[in-house]
Amino acid sequence: MTKSFRVAIVGATGAVGRKFIECLEKRRFPVATMTMYASPDSVGKVLHYGGKPHRIVGLSAETVESFDFAFFSAGSSISREYAPIFAAKGAVVIDNSSAWRMDPGTPLVVPEVNPAEAAKHRGIIANPNCSTIQMVVALKPLHDAARIRRIVVSTYQAISGAGGRALAEFDEEVRSDFLKDGLSKRKIFPRPVAFNCIPQVPQKEAYLPTGYTIEETKMVEETKKILGDPSIRVAATCVRVPVRNAHSESVNIETERKLTPAEAVVILKKAPGLSVSESPETFPTPLEVSGRDETFVGRLREDPSVENGLHLWIVADNVLKGAALNAVQIAELLTPR
Amino acid sequence: MTKSFRVAIVGATGAVGRKFIECLEKRRFPVATMTMYASPDSVGKVLHYGGKPHRIVGLSAETVESFDFAFFSAGSSISREYAPIFAAKGAVVIDNSSAWRMDPGTPLVVPEVNPAEAAKHRGIIANPNCSTIQMVVALKPLHDAARIRRIVVSTYQAISGAGGRALAEFDEEVRSDFLKDGLSKRKIFPRPVAFNCIPQVPQKEAYLPTGYTIEETKMVEETKKILGDPSIRVAATCVRVPVRNAHSESVNIETERKLTPAEAVVILKKAPGLSVSESPETFPTPLEVSGRDETFVGRLREDPSVENGLHLWIVADNVLKGAALNAVQIAELLTPR
Repeated sequence: MTKSFRVAIVGATGAVGRKFIECLEKRRFPVATMTMYASPDSVGKVLHYGGKPHRIVGLSAETVESFDFAFFSAGSSISREYAPIFAAKGAVVIDNSSAWRMDPGTPLVVPEVNPAEAAKHRGIIANPNCSTIQMVVALKPLHDAARIRRIVVSTYQAISGAGGRALAEFDEEVRSDFLKDGLSKRKIFPRPVAFNCIPQVPQKEAYLPTGYTIEETKMVEETKKILGDPSIRVAATCVRVPVRNAHSESVNIETERKLTPAEAVVILKKAPGLSVSESPETFPTPLEVSGRDETFVGRLREDPSVENGLHLWIVADNVLKGAALNAVQIAELLTPR
Repeated sequence: MTKSFRVAIVGATGAVGRKFIECLEKRRFPVATMTMYASPDSVGKVLHYGGKPHRIVGLSAETVESFDFAFFSAGSSISREYAPIFAAKGAVVIDNSSAWRMDPGTPLVVPEVNPAEAAKHRGIIANPNCSTIQMVVALKPLHDAARIRRIVVSTYQAISGAGGRALAEFDEEVRSDFLKDGLSKRKIFPRPVAFNCIPQVPQKEAYLPTGYTIEETKMVEETKKILGDPSIRVAATCVRVPVRNAHSESVNIETERKLTPAEAVVILKKAPGLSVSESPETFPTPLEVSGRDETFVGRLREDPSVENGLHLWIVADNVLKGAALNAVQIAELLTPR
């Protein structure tokens, strides 16, 4: 008989919370019991797991029980406060927020890249930033083969990365553009994002004193930690584009050893979690990649502007591989079947 | 009395052709006579210049008259065939197509960057590619100050760059997304572009044997020619995004001499044709820049991943500064008032 586990989802009603449910169901994660936590205003709501209704439990120090796994996606401050409480009661917390990612004692795991890190946890494992996950899935095999020295990345990030309310506001913007009837008050995005490009992620309180955004800084720091190589230099520009779901990235790398595009294709085709387009015309796009599990790579070509340069176009579903799916895959690393 | 000129527009009914008319009117270009040429199926149509109706003339070897200036935007094959004919009859042809840009005897001019080149013409002056123009307007002052060695650029290009019929197809896609009623046959874009990102410009017959698109290759070659420095290395990735008008660019540069972001801001603020956002929050976006004459720069910040690195976010109206306005400014260089 397969062992099964007591599972909690914290932030179950959010966009990523709902994807946790979907991924656990789809991947037939061995769930013995399921408990769904959310904020007080969601208490009493009912969500389904495996066809059965689950009443949302309000999160408080008193309602935390003992679990085997707790999937968190309820923001950094909830994770900072509650992840240690769940861990103290025996759960392995897999946290989708940024709260624990750069903590030296917390593994930051992408199963295709650094699976062995997961076992080193002390109760909490951090799920990396969405933009970082898809980039390292594609770059790890190239790093192993030729050692990446520098990465210059510009992102094309979907609205879903800003959450369910952002998607609703975006659709409202599109509707008002179509009907020319004026938009009701903007709440999530300070400036229009429909039919526009916003080089600022997140949309509010984005900047560090360096002039970089939080998202850009995550890509720099998390990439080094996940690839286990602090010497890799990363330059990131993160841009929100009017795409509903799936992030795209224009990535330029310099490697220590020369890697031809043909060699890179062979390497990437053998690597886990990737789908590689060899022909330039069959590049992946976010509309096609949305809903898919893999990370998609296309437009692989030599960059002759530097000694050992390569260009890649990388697309993945930011809510799946960039969040919920990666978290469930982390749990699977700890539950060999 | 100011001298005035016999002006022709070739391709007057197209998106850029109409912008030629608008720019000439708005800038009070001293027009003595105006003749508008277009393809046979537009013959007899009437467009207005300065409030007066002008009947479209069909373009053929027989209908070419003598002009002082002829503004071309009717595709490369028309330019290749007809620009020499107009030039032989005395006109200075200012050609918006790519036909003559890399011809060694043809100046490739951005008035803010290399105005002196215009005087060297032998009857034809080439107007650069839209993505290149806005990039070199922003980079020339930095190149003069610190010598740019390498540029890595990823573009976020508007639908209008693919022409009026592309914009109509895009709006049809948005409509069909909104009404969920299915899209009538796709003609311009092989794949959906609404709510998507397409890393292939142009949308058809895009690739050279290098794996680079024609647009990417234009950015590499034209940048070197306009800046007059073949040693500058350029790596470009060109992407179409669901924005109606105005191109954005994420640009990373390496310079020979160190340039701090503060120094770069001072330099750019003194340079012609630029509007610079100092604060990170006031970055330009395509929705706000559409319809504006200047090139807008924001998110200027140091790139610590390389010795002398800088990041910039550059936005301009691709039909104005990227096409019609730049062409009219070239004519103005030859008509000092």
